[in-house]
Amino acid sequence: MAKKVKVGIVGLGRLGRQHAENLASRVPNCELSAICSVVEDEISAFKEKWDVPFSYTNYDEMLRNKDLDAIFIASPSGFHCDQIIKALDAGFHVFSEKPLGLYLEEAEQVMAAVESHPDQVFMLGFMRRYDRSYADAKRKIVNGDIGEPILIRCYGLDPASQMDNFLAFAKANYSGGLFLDMSIHDLDLARWYMGSEAQEVWAIGGGYARQEFDEIKDAETGAAMVRFENNTMGIFVAGRNSAHGYHIETEIIGTKGSIRIGTVPERNQIVLFNENGAVKKCYDGFLERFEQAYLSETEEFIHCIMEGRQPEVTVRDGVESTRLGYACKQSFETRQLVKVREASLVKNG
Amino acid sequence: MAKKVKVGIVGLGRLGRQHAENLASRVPNCELSAICSVVEDEISAFKEKWDVPFSYTNYDEMLRNKDLDAIFIASPSGFHCDQIIKALDAGFHVFSEKPLGLYLEEAEQVMAAVESHPDQVFMLGFMRRYDRSYADAKRKIVNGDIGEPILIRCYGLDPASQMDNFLAFAKANYSGGLFLDMSIHDLDLARWYMGSEAQEVWAIGGGYARQEFDEIKDAETGAAMVRFENNTMGIFVAGRNSAHGYHIETEIIGTKGSIRIGTVPERNQIVLFNENGAVKKCYDGFLERFEQAYLSETEEFIHCIMEGRQPEVTVRDGVESTRLGYACKQSFETRQLVKVREASLVKNG
Amino acid sequence: MAKKVKVGIVGLGRLGRQHAENLASRVPNCELSAICSVVEDEISAFKEKWDVPFSYTNYDEMLRNKDLDAIFIASPSGFHCDQIIKALDAGFHVFSEKPLGLYLEEAEQVMAAVESHPDQVFMLGFMRRYDRSYADAKRKIVNGDIGEPILIRCYGLDPASQMDNFLAFAKANYSGGLFLDMSIHDLDLARWYMGSEAQEVWAIGGGYARQEFDEIKDAETGAAMVRFENNTMGIFVAGRNSAHGYHIETEIIGTKGSIRIGTVPERNQIVLFNENGAVKKCYDGFLERFEQAYLSETEEFIHCIMEGRQPEVTVRDGVESTRLGYACKQSFETRQLVKVREASLVKNG
Amino acid sequence: MAKKVKVGIVGLGRLGRQHAENLASRVPNCELSAICSVVEDEISAFKEKWDVPFSYTNYDEMLRNKDLDAIFIASPSGFHCDQIIKALDAGFHVFSEKPLGLYLEEAEQVMAAVESHPDQVFMLGFMRRYDRSYADAKRKIVNGDIGEPILIRCYGLDPASQMDNFLAFAKANYSGGLFLDMSIHDLDLARWYMGSEAQEVWAIGGGYARQEFDEIKDAETGAAMVRFENNTMGIFVAGRNSAHGYHIETEIIGTKGSIRIGTVPERNQIVLFNENGAVKKCYDGFLERFEQAYLSETEEFIHCIMEGRQPEVTVRDGVESTRLGYACKQSFETRQLVKVREASLVKNG
Repeated sequence: MAKKVKVGIVGLGRLGRQHAENLASRVPNCELSAICSVVEDEISAFKEKWDVPFSYTNYDEMLRNKDLDAIFIASPSGFHCDQIIKALDAGFHVFSEKPLGLYLEEAEQVMAAVESHPDQVFMLGFMRRYDRSYADAKRKIVNGDIGEPILIRCYGLDPASQMDNFLAFAKANYSGGLFLDMSIHDLDLARWYMGSEAQEVWAIGGGYARQEFDEIKDAETGAAMVRFENNTMGIFVAGRNSAHGYHIETEIIGTKGSIRIGTVPERNQIVLFNENGAVKKCYDGFLERFEQAYLSETEEFIHCIMEGRQPEVTVRDGVESTRLGYACKQSFETRQLVKVREASLVKNG
Repeated sequence: MAKKVKVGIVGLGRLGRQHAENLASRVPNCELSAICSVVEDEISAFKEKWDVPFSYTNYDEMLRNKDLDAIFIASPSGFHCDQIIKALDAGFHVFSEKPLGLYLEEAEQVMAAVESHPDQVFMLGFMRRYDRSYADAKRKIVNGDIGEPILIRCYGLDPASQMDNFLAFAKANYSGGLFLDMSIHDLDLARWYMGSEAQEVWAIGGGYARQEFDEIKDAETGAAMVRFENNTMGIFVAGRNSAHGYHIETEIIGTKGSIRIGTVPERNQIVLFNENGAVKKCYDGFLERFEQAYLSETEEFIHCIMEGRQPEVTVRDGVESTRLGYACKQSFETRQLVKVREASLVKNG
Repeated sequence: MAKKVKVGIVGLGRLGRQHAENLASRVPNCELSAICSVVEDEISAFKEKWDVPFSYTNYDEMLRNKDLDAIFIASPSGFHCDQIIKALDAGFHVFSEKPLGLYLEEAEQVMAAVESHPDQVFMLGFMRRYDRSYADAKRKIVNGDIGEPILIRCYGLDPASQMDNFLAFAKANYSGGLFLDMSIHDLDLARWYMGSEAQEVWAIGGGYARQEFDEIKDAETGAAMVRFENNTMGIFVAGRNSAHGYHIETEIIGTKGSIRIGTVPERNQIVLFNENGAVKKCYDGFLERFEQAYLSETEEFIHCIMEGRQPEVTVRDGVESTRLGYACKQSFETRQLVKVREASLVKNG
Repeated sequence: MAKKVKVGIVGLGRLGRQHAENLASRVPNCELSAICSVVEDEISAFKEKWDVPFSYTNYDEMLRNKDLDAIFIASPSGFHCDQIIKALDAGFHVFSEKPLGLYLEEAEQVMAAVESHPDQVFMLGFMRRYDRSYADAKRKIVNGDIGEPILIRCYGLDPASQMDNFLAFAKANYSGGLFLDMSIHDLDLARWYMGSEAQEVWAIGGGYARQEFDEIKDAETGAAMVRFENNTMGIFVAGRNSAHGYHIETEIIGTKGSIRIGTVPERNQIVLFNENGAVKKCYDGFLERFEQAYLSETEEFIHCIMEGRQPEVTVRDGVESTRLGYACKQSFETRQLVKVREASLVKNG
């Protein structure tokens, strides 16, 4: 039997913990060998829980542990670019949560680093591609079930219950803004399904329930419309104020049919009939909706390492999705139609 | 152009008014010429509203109006048998709301009367057969889309909001009991779709939310299972305590597929997403659910008269459905498996 | 009882016949007194069928019939402007199918005519407002059930089965183009629900399955994104190539919830389970989907006449929806972001 | 950190392999230490794949391995009774797939054995209780969300694609018959949700598409209706000929609402719109539908061992569900209403 892949993870927030749990207990042929976090209390609790031999509060120190095969990055977005490059330079296979960086130029730096280490596996956490429904949709499209795709519509809406948390965070930090932070997965999916890069975009939106969004020059809910290079169409709605929960929905209209994924984000198979009518509860958040995808992408990462190949999601997917996200952001801020290739690469919108 | 069919209606309760409205304003080639009710206030109000030339508080008197072509019976169930026979004997075409009578022997008397007036149109108000979804299901079955039908499941549930009204009525009157009163449409549909008569039945149920049902020896909610002569199966659930509204649902399982009608009794095309989740409002009652069917059956009645033919629903359908309803009632009361042909014909269960 | 409103209809195509049928048989207090069509064969057949006293092949002649109270216009779009103005000038109440005219200036001419005849009822056939689901949505919004509306998304897709017919028509005639012809109802709904006028629009699209659309400078499927004056958002998708049938879908996202209408355009209550899975058939076309709305709007028209009031849908609704449709068209043709108030008023796009 | 629980599994068929995969890779704090199968080829392949230290072709031999903590039984049903008792006697914790045995008396023997080893964990594979939707339904019922449960309806339908395999098996082996083999999970769920034992049952059915079922005195599709001791109702439909796939559906009607689980057994979040309409693919089989439940029940088994407690599912649940299954079988065979407590305990129906 093959030797297990030894992984060190950095970042133990909500998503980081889910990844660590998967690496520790659910992914075959893999061992969670090291955890790294600046929060010392987390370290001691999880070290014991998952029986992890190594733990660090310093990322650079973890990179010096040559017992590890791979680094899994689940830290805050602002650290991604630097941590990816360092891990690659230290010779590790690298998995990083999206985004590649907070600015487009960071994404491009990462791309350069990845390309200069072609023998190391690099994988970006576009987990939706590994969700069974999204993967099935891709197969159907490739199979011609809907003819040629002509329009994609993507909704990415966070539950209203988390709006306060977000506002508190965003007032103190640079989040990237609605389109880069919330739509990035949708932008990647659109490129994947439509098989083309974005050419032009117009984005609108505002602070509707909470005017604080205007103050931080961000949108509570926004919409972007994209024309792709092959003249197909993209519609992207993102928001932070979804009353019914976490709502990720995608539709691809083709010349011979169409596919919808997640029209009603029903969290399980229950319908409750009561005086309100027929009621379906909706998803709570991304960990609940994409549990299987988070596990499957990690399995794929381990398989890639074991089989010496690169995953289907490439660093270029990360860069191009970021470029489009930036163009959305710029259009929203300038109120102009923006040509994606000409989007200015300013650091702070 | 053909002369209009002149109709006199008896009974102006909720359903009677709907029928009268249809006859007066929505059915081509038809004229509402007379209304009859023992409630004098109703008479004067509706006579003017629908511009009806004749009005009566005495049914026999209406039957003496030879200007009329047809009698439409929407009076309380206890009057049906007598009024049908009188109208037939007076030479009119007759439409009667279900049931043919409160007792099986009444139904059989009606059958004899109908058969002795073969040139007059007689139609029984099994309106579901004229509902677009139910009619479409029949076509699909005849077309072989689901192979041979092997099981039918029917739900007939009245809204909980009307339970008090029903209890008040049933304490003072003989309603026929849950299965005769509520399931009669389902029993007809089952015979229609399965193409066989019932052989054996077992019925259970009780008073669950309201023990008064036990006192009147009726069931608040009940279930009956039927074996048909061709060994196919029937499941019937009836109730008076549906929290979400009026719920009529039918499923036919065949050897090659199955059909469901009305799985969620959504009243319109709206889904409301709010903090409860994804919510569909349900139907309020039978007038709302079967509005189109009530109109279409009346159009068919008028067409039959104009074209000198009998409708597809026959008096025998009424008798056999009643017979099965009686067997359900007897099984529920005796707690025994009942052979339908041997169900005793007692008048008061 | 009140005297019946006597109506003359012009145009007996598919929709015209439906209207005539409603006027003749289904709308209380109304009489179909005259029909007008240039197709003589239609005239004789329908005159007898509906028992209509007067028939015309010349519109002006019908206007000279002072026995009539109202004119119902269901002729081809190119005639609307002229026929409306003439009927108003002749003193009749007028119902007209959309659009007010083929060009924005025609719509404005109609508005002037309507405003100079304030005592005559004028109603425009924006029937969706009278559809039960759409009307219920409006009530919910007014009631605050979803908070403040912030985004509306409208789909208007014609069945692929009619694409050839359309192309044959559009090669020989000026149809108005995708957005004016298909989206006009959606544009009206958006203004109605959002309570604001459009400020800016960007529209894209193309000929995907059939390049002939490019040749006639029209779009087979297209999308428009609108910013309203109150900074809310509108997304409009229109198309002529819907594989599954006639698909009218609307979503309104508010600050406290959202409403969807017609997510799956299921034609009836049947779900068929077979080797394909769980299958719902979809609507065939607008007459099937909006049967109730077509009837209800006509009832409202008659009520308005009888009660001496104007309907909620005003001529201004027609003008403003047309203006927005023109801006969509211009944006699609010029590939530019268009300010709606500045959309040039050229006659031929 | 606690020592890992070492498990030996017997039976490596489709479900056995799924369990083994879970034990080897997905369940924390657990180690797959031994596999046992009479099929030698399976042994060598899986020993390497899962890196299992011990392998056996002889069950008794595996029981002599005192390195093991627990035995996991996934062998054919005919072996369960014997293997459970032997494993308990050898001092192991035991997990067994349903049923406890092929005959009621076997189930009772197992119960005696379990009760005489109170310090060993015994768990029966009623995995549905660990399915998120089913568990959520239980919580809602306990919470009073639907008032008092009064009727449960359970569908258990195997895909038609597996009917030939089943017939080949059932001609050569004693399967237990439709109700014991297919409905056993539903019978357990009914007892769990209704909180009462069955009192009377009537069962019907037949061979509809395939008459071979009549030859082996079994039903291709069947229905059973149950009256519980608290006078609530149960309806059970089981079948082996579901055209659209694996269909497990449950409904609990209560005095204040109702719950439906799995109304449409849609396999993922995709709706495909094409010329057939709106189409949802359905589940393929039990491994796909209950993947999460199979994993969660095993996690619970390991937790019970680590925490020295018994699972909620008891051996008595297995015995009583089997008893009810036998009564269904007897009713189907004798065509009589059967009192569950009096169902004769014959070995071969």
